[in-house]
Amino acid sequence: MASHKLCMIPGPIEFHEDVLQAMATPATSHVAPNFIPALGESIELLRQILFTSGQPFIIAGSGTLGWDMTASNLVEAGEDVLVCNSGYFGDRFGECLETYGAKVTHLRVPIGESPKLDDVAAALKTKKFKAITITHVDTSTGVLADIKGIADVVRRESPETLVVVDGVCSVGSEEIRMDAWGIDVVVTASQKALGAPPGLCVMGVSERAIGVFKNRKTPVPNYYANWNRWLPIMNAYEARKPSYFATPAVQNIFALNVSLKQIVAQGIEQRFAVHKEASAKAKKFIHDLGLELVPTSLEHAANGMSAVYYPEGVAATDLLPKLAAHGIVAAGGLHADIAPKYFRIGHMGISVTEPERGHLDATLNALKASLAECGYKGAL
Amino acid sequence: MASHKLCMIPGPIEFHEDVLQAMATPATSHVAPNFIPALGESIELLRQILFTSGQPFIIAGSGTLGWDMTASNLVEAGEDVLVCNSGYFGDRFGECLETYGAKVTHLRVPIGESPKLDDVAAALKTKKFKAITITHVDTSTGVLADIKGIADVVRRESPETLVVVDGVCSVGSEEIRMDAWGIDVVVTASQKALGAPPGLCVMGVSERAIGVFKNRKTPVPNYYANWNRWLPIMNAYEARKPSYFATPAVQNIFALNVSLKQIVAQGIEQRFAVHKEASAKAKKFIHDLGLELVPTSLEHAANGMSAVYYPEGVAATDLLPKLAAHGIVAAGGLHADIAPKYFRIGHMGISVTEPERGHLDATLNALKASLAECGYKGAL
Repeated sequence: MASHKLCMIPGPIEFHEDVLQAMATPATSHVAPNFIPALGESIELLRQILFTSGQPFIIAGSGTLGWDMTASNLVEAGEDVLVCNSGYFGDRFGECLETYGAKVTHLRVPIGESPKLDDVAAALKTKKFKAITITHVDTSTGVLADIKGIADVVRRESPETLVVVDGVCSVGSEEIRMDAWGIDVVVTASQKALGAPPGLCVMGVSERAIGVFKNRKTPVPNYYANWNRWLPIMNAYEARKPSYFATPAVQNIFALNVSLKQIVAQGIEQRFAVHKEASAKAKKFIHDLGLELVPTSLEHAANGMSAVYYPEGVAATDLLPKLAAHGIVAAGGLHADIAPKYFRIGHMGISVTEPERGHLDATLNALKASLAECGYKGAL
Repeated sequence: MASHKLCMIPGPIEFHEDVLQAMATPATSHVAPNFIPALGESIELLRQILFTSGQPFIIAGSGTLGWDMTASNLVEAGEDVLVCNSGYFGDRFGECLETYGAKVTHLRVPIGESPKLDDVAAALKTKKFKAITITHVDTSTGVLADIKGIADVVRRESPETLVVVDGVCSVGSEEIRMDAWGIDVVVTASQKALGAPPGLCVMGVSERAIGVFKNRKTPVPNYYANWNRWLPIMNAYEARKPSYFATPAVQNIFALNVSLKQIVAQGIEQRFAVHKEASAKAKKFIHDLGLELVPTSLEHAANGMSAVYYPEGVAATDLLPKLAAHGIVAAGGLHADIAPKYFRIGHMGISVTEPERGHLDATLNALKASLAECGYKGAL
């Protein structure tokens, strides 16, 4: 792999050499005998990774397109949706739902907090919601939501409400068990803990949600996102047959396929554990430096990333260029209310599953050195 | 580049080694100092390639997403659209427009024919159309539409009607001059004559059409496709500033950037000429073999591909596997009415601009040899 600064942001993440090699697969027809099984197998592997018997989708686009797919296929105009809103992505998902006529109720949580189960239960009592959405890991704050707990509450209070998880920054780094936990939709993308370059919208949809979709009363108000188009395509490729609606991103799917095979081969349970360990190590290092996390408790802090307040006297314009000079690319703040006050680092994928690469150590050491260069006493 | 069968279908096409190398760019942030100019410059290069001062868009997705963008941003529910329908893609674009409430009138032309200017003029007199759509090269038939002539007719008969060109299979291989010809929208994708792998929706939109968009009366009924989201993103990257709505397909855009730079460096006029020459050579070879093209006249046959009827006694199941055994991937039929009766070969991009690669000769020789193996007398 060409020498480059380590991309330690909360996605895109560092890719395995074999994944990158697959991105450079020479021109291949989207109905070629070697491409069809790459897409077909990726669909099967996603079922394993998401622990679901439901329907995966892999479509050229981004995680944002996954919101569109959820909103336009599962929610009909005038229906109520409860958005557990922990930051930037809750606002945006809400806007997406409203585009298709949903009536959105935001259950907002203070910055750094995760949605409380009692608040979810109380909100669910106020009206009949077609769906509830939860940002599993809010990339803007590093907060991890208790999707298992929330899904339990939904099953108890409003069992018909569809449970939708925005897992863009969680699938592959945080534990998700769609069927066992009663989760109906997981939206994600290729470029985070699934370990491939950006360019693919990736979803898992429960059999129940597919049933709700098939029984909708009004036509799907979107063309590219319409599951009536995509279900036959996914089914065909899984049956190792060609089909056509839109040309798939052949090289990106080859790359995703390599990464999904690695994830399953290494063991999914093991993957969860390794991400927890690496996160604990990163967060202890950050704590020992005297820095504060944006999440108000380790209990609801993501395992695949850390959002960290700058210490007094250090600003984004100081720290990020110094980290870059040490060969580490970190991200600035994203939540509008606190954007200039914090930074974010990602610790997902090969950067933690293959610790011999030294990515996390290099990042933490560079953080300490850069803070010292900024004159921060706690790092001296 | 790894040894592989030559991908001589009408897209995806063969890619330059430098394009593939760019696909394997190591992990890079979507706001990295080396990525921002790759997207920004690609936007500028598209203006040159499309001969427009209008607004290019480069978005993770496919050409199909470009229909969505056109339909949901430019046409409001209840407005009339005239679809010049020469095959499969006219049907689909019509369905896409109807999804957003457009009233679609199809001007259907017989298989192998291109839309006649008099018929377009007559259709434009019947009602006020918000837009007219034309499939520039119908990939399902290899027919080339006279978009310059049609745009002239529109300007004469109905100057307010927006001229929308589906250029998925034409941009980069057929002459298009958006501003000079009065074309408002060109929809294309990365994987055809733009010479990059699939995964990107690419568009050019005239200043006039952007004005129509900004003056629309109703909200855009789509989230991912909404130009209100994408205009600030395209503007930011062109100004070499980061911005965020959805994570761009970083590697695909690096690859597209390499290809667009090659196209402009080689000269766009030269590119048109070389595609015409290669097409003439292919079509003469096909004619000399005694085979018939799907387009009823060379006057309206595409320069980037050829759609060819099988001769008597030869079927898809005979010819395509034999071509593959010779190392050439060709495509079967796509137009439902004649699908089993014809095949398609692409001759776009490096396969014709760099004839020293021998792609076209290898393809034509393999075609002759394969037909002979099928027992076709004309090839003996």
